[in-house]
Amino acid sequence: MIVLAYPGTQGGPEQAAMIAAYLQQAGVPHVEWGSFLDRPLIGRVEAGEFDLMVALGGDGTVLRAGHLCAPLGMALLGVNLGRFGFLTEIQRGEWRDGLARLVEGRFRLEERMLLRAEHWRREKMLGSWLVMNEVVVCRGQFVRPIRVTTSVDSFPLTTYVADGVIASTPTGSTAYALAAGGPIMPPELRNILIIPIAPHLTMDRAIILPEGARVSFGVYTDHEAVVSIDGHPPVGLLEGDEVRVEASDLTVHFVRFQDRGYFYRNITAYMEQNPSAGTR
Amino acid sequence: MIVLAYPGTQGGPEQAAMIAAYLQQAGVPHVEWGSFLDRPLIGRVEAGEFDLMVALGGDGTVLRAGHLCAPLGMALLGVNLGRFGFLTEIQRGEWRDGLARLVEGRFRLEERMLLRAEHWRREKMLGSWLVMNEVVVCRGQFVRPIRVTTSVDSFPLTTYVADGVIASTPTGSTAYALAAGGPIMPPELRNILIIPIAPHLTMDRAIILPEGARVSFGVYTDHEAVVSIDGHPPVGLLEGDEVRVEASDLTVHFVRFQDRGYFYRNITAYMEQNPSAGTR
Amino acid sequence: MIVLAYPGTQGGPEQAAMIAAYLQQAGVPHVEWGSFLDRPLIGRVEAGEFDLMVALGGDGTVLRAGHLCAPLGMALLGVNLGRFGFLTEIQRGEWRDGLARLVEGRFRLEERMLLRAEHWRREKMLGSWLVMNEVVVCRGQFVRPIRVTTSVDSFPLTTYVADGVIASTPTGSTAYALAAGGPIMPPELRNILIIPIAPHLTMDRAIILPEGARVSFGVYTDHEAVVSIDGHPPVGLLEGDEVRVEASDLTVHFVRFQDRGYFYRNITAYMEQNPSAGTR
Amino acid sequence: MIVLAYPGTQGGPEQAAMIAAYLQQAGVPHVEWGSFLDRPLIGRVEAGEFDLMVALGGDGTVLRAGHLCAPLGMALLGVNLGRFGFLTEIQRGEWRDGLARLVEGRFRLEERMLLRAEHWRREKMLGSWLVMNEVVVCRGQFVRPIRVTTSVDSFPLTTYVADGVIASTPTGSTAYALAAGGPIMPPELRNILIIPIAPHLTMDRAIILPEGARVSFGVYTDHEAVVSIDGHPPVGLLEGDEVRVEASDLTVHFVRFQDRGYFYRNITAYMEQNPSAGTR
Repeated sequence: MIVLAYPGTQGGPEQAAMIAAYLQQAGVPHVEWGSFLDRPLIGRVEAGEFDLMVALGGDGTVLRAGHLCAPLGMALLGVNLGRFGFLTEIQRGEWRDGLARLVEGRFRLEERMLLRAEHWRREKMLGSWLVMNEVVVCRGQFVRPIRVTTSVDSFPLTTYVADGVIASTPTGSTAYALAAGGPIMPPELRNILIIPIAPHLTMDRAIILPEGARVSFGVYTDHEAVVSIDGHPPVGLLEGDEVRVEASDLTVHFVRFQDRGYFYRNITAYMEQNPSAGTR
Repeated sequence: MIVLAYPGTQGGPEQAAMIAAYLQQAGVPHVEWGSFLDRPLIGRVEAGEFDLMVALGGDGTVLRAGHLCAPLGMALLGVNLGRFGFLTEIQRGEWRDGLARLVEGRFRLEERMLLRAEHWRREKMLGSWLVMNEVVVCRGQFVRPIRVTTSVDSFPLTTYVADGVIASTPTGSTAYALAAGGPIMPPELRNILIIPIAPHLTMDRAIILPEGARVSFGVYTDHEAVVSIDGHPPVGLLEGDEVRVEASDLTVHFVRFQDRGYFYRNITAYMEQNPSAGTR
Repeated sequence: MIVLAYPGTQGGPEQAAMIAAYLQQAGVPHVEWGSFLDRPLIGRVEAGEFDLMVALGGDGTVLRAGHLCAPLGMALLGVNLGRFGFLTEIQRGEWRDGLARLVEGRFRLEERMLLRAEHWRREKMLGSWLVMNEVVVCRGQFVRPIRVTTSVDSFPLTTYVADGVIASTPTGSTAYALAAGGPIMPPELRNILIIPIAPHLTMDRAIILPEGARVSFGVYTDHEAVVSIDGHPPVGLLEGDEVRVEASDLTVHFVRFQDRGYFYRNITAYMEQNPSAGTR
Repeated sequence: MIVLAYPGTQGGPEQAAMIAAYLQQAGVPHVEWGSFLDRPLIGRVEAGEFDLMVALGGDGTVLRAGHLCAPLGMALLGVNLGRFGFLTEIQRGEWRDGLARLVEGRFRLEERMLLRAEHWRREKMLGSWLVMNEVVVCRGQFVRPIRVTTSVDSFPLTTYVADGVIASTPTGSTAYALAAGGPIMPPELRNILIIPIAPHLTMDRAIILPEGARVSFGVYTDHEAVVSIDGHPPVGLLEGDEVRVEASDLTVHFVRFQDRGYFYRNITAYMEQNPSAGTR
């Protein structure tokens, strides 16, 4: 097992050291801890030296950890050092109980579907990415809409005139897609969610696609457009470039101690407003 | 001053008696207390015997109190016995401070615009109402859309195919219109808000009209349609009936101790979700 | 084959007769035509005498035809006599081409998932229904919100304060659920969609569930609440009643001549506004 | 009168010349035509040499023309060379009728409220702008939300976590604010509309403010944020910068031949989908 934190996260390294010590004491054979920024250590992770990652931080940290773990088939346990999280499983200060269950094998693995995105220019693929949350094809610096011609399984869907369009995993349904007005999808779903951002007189509803769907976005704009994966630095698109999205063969395996109902409890906790208020 | 509560409200009559006693001790010349259901007492209220009403309950109680106060020009102070309220000014258990300010005259009157709604069948007006929150023209018992042809100042706007359509005051913008997806309007606004409920492929956006606008709803349906004012029992509409809405000459005068910022503080308190959550 | 129309539909019986004559001439062995209101004939349909139904009318007619066909495993072909339709396959006046393909066997069967809804009072099931579009648990005559406590697989989800809540099939995603703000789901999906109608400060997003999910709605209200299936006359609910929803074992089999892209073409045709307009 | 077009607009210069010739023939004393890019000519416009501008193009052209006309009190007539427009008054090919009315004085002036935006860094104002449609404080290149602390008349409203937030004029209510989900405001309104773009678990409703409101946006982000006026090139913001927005003393005066109902007719034409479709 490898326990990782970001150096800058408040108490991150200290907690990582404590957790690693706990796991060693509990008899876990091969435990180390360190930083996501320690390149040699990450190199050993990528070489397959560890079977499970404990990632300390917020949902953003778990996202980045997932990018590491998914291609390796490593299980991933998120320990929250922030205030709330849709992805983390253990809250700060409550890790002893969780780790005890981890050591005793009393957990389940929650498989979450990922996407694969490709950037094509004419006949050439310029880049490809694994996607935990969402692929976004959107405006760059200029605050103007772009046109995104969208097809599903080569069938024309529509041309969005919008800030951009999102293709999201179920995991991403509580991230940018939620902000764009999209529906919520529990972790076990295997669907692709398409939703535009600030569409102007074009189709404004989310579309839910089956796992096997192949989505294509073509960009038409007289100003800058970009593609961004999971909030990573954007990549520039030229007029006529195509971004292809489909389900990945890979999944991420989250360690869960809670029953499946945790997802609905989280939604209610994070999304509820104050239904006791007002005159209705 | 008259202090009123509903008999069924938890602790309502007791609080009313205590508040009345406090006001009498503080030297307010003519104070009585009682129940909203005490017809003779309400008759004396309607005859103009009192200059200010203290209403105990939730926002629903304040709504009903406003219907009493507005035609009389009576000031209205809402004391909250529930958990939250957009309209009440004093929280349960905190009324001493507020009432002290009331007695000392350290308050402002917040004027809120009302609407007037009329139900017309051919050339005949079958009913008219004062509106605190909203007029709703909507489906009755059958769970099917109705068609509502809408005009503003005799200019055709659109025909909604929807569960119904709402014409709301600024006060009502945090009530049913909010649930239908509408914008929020602070108390000092003098605009009329039109918004459909669950529109099916017809215009789905709210429209904000100036105070002087005259709105007309015409109903076309093969099943039951109704008009309802402020959640009161619905009145049946026949095909071709018209509901006319415009600003009322009357206003309701709320007693306020807080600065104008209270409205924005309430919105944030009631509407905020949990912006610390998630991976964005 | 049986060709059915409603007596009131403009040109319905004449078209039914013409279509039946065409099919007989084309050598289809057992063809009859008639009215959806002809009870003896419908009885023979229900007895399994026919293998395929041609239904003439709009989407509403196809909905009702689906209720007949699904339990029998009968294929269903909708011929549109109205102006547009999400469910019909052939437009008025274009049926010769379609029927030629039908006779030659050049079509595919599109399977659409259905729901099953049950109405429970304490330990007793008072009714159960097959659902083509949606189950709606909502307010009755009074124009006030109800409270609907909702769980998924016995895990608590949330308590909606709303006009009502919809559980929709993918087919229903273009019906009431669309009006309520929901996402669009192509026919091949096998998901359940939950979405509230005009929620007041409670969760307002659609939730997409996997096919196997069991949904339960519990009703709490001081006024009338009802359950309605596919727009049929509402059934009254008492405080504490439960409506259970899950996927049905049955499906409806639509005859389709068009490729799968028809669904996206229809969405674009029906939902697009005018993206050439305006200053964005 | 001055007739202006962009050189690139299809048929723009030719139409400008024809319109100018028509006006001269009709006896209008001082008519010239030219290009928006002709700096010396624009300098003469800015010096007040003309009393009325005829602008040829789409809504975008009218927006830019408004920026020229408003400070000068010049009337503005938009002639549409595109396909549709919320702001233009005359359609391509129909300008003879309109111009005849212009020459005969048979028109009304429609006054539209403008905003004034200022960019402050500590005690220093770095820039100020006149706003026809909207001020947008939003993310720059990075596809991540920013935090925008918002106050109204120095009262705290909320902190948006969003792609950005829009302060819009009534004119802008059919532009970016519409795409963000906002309500529609007819031209005669004098309100300010605030609405976030893709808010993440923060307040998602539009807020309508009275004309006198002073709005302040404070930016908090670890990546790039910008302010953009009416789609113009964005200006970079630093953490802690403030953007202030209030109603301008200036208005734009549109020449209108149509009655006030044109606005509602346009909305219906541009926003309606296909209410004949589907199973509701």
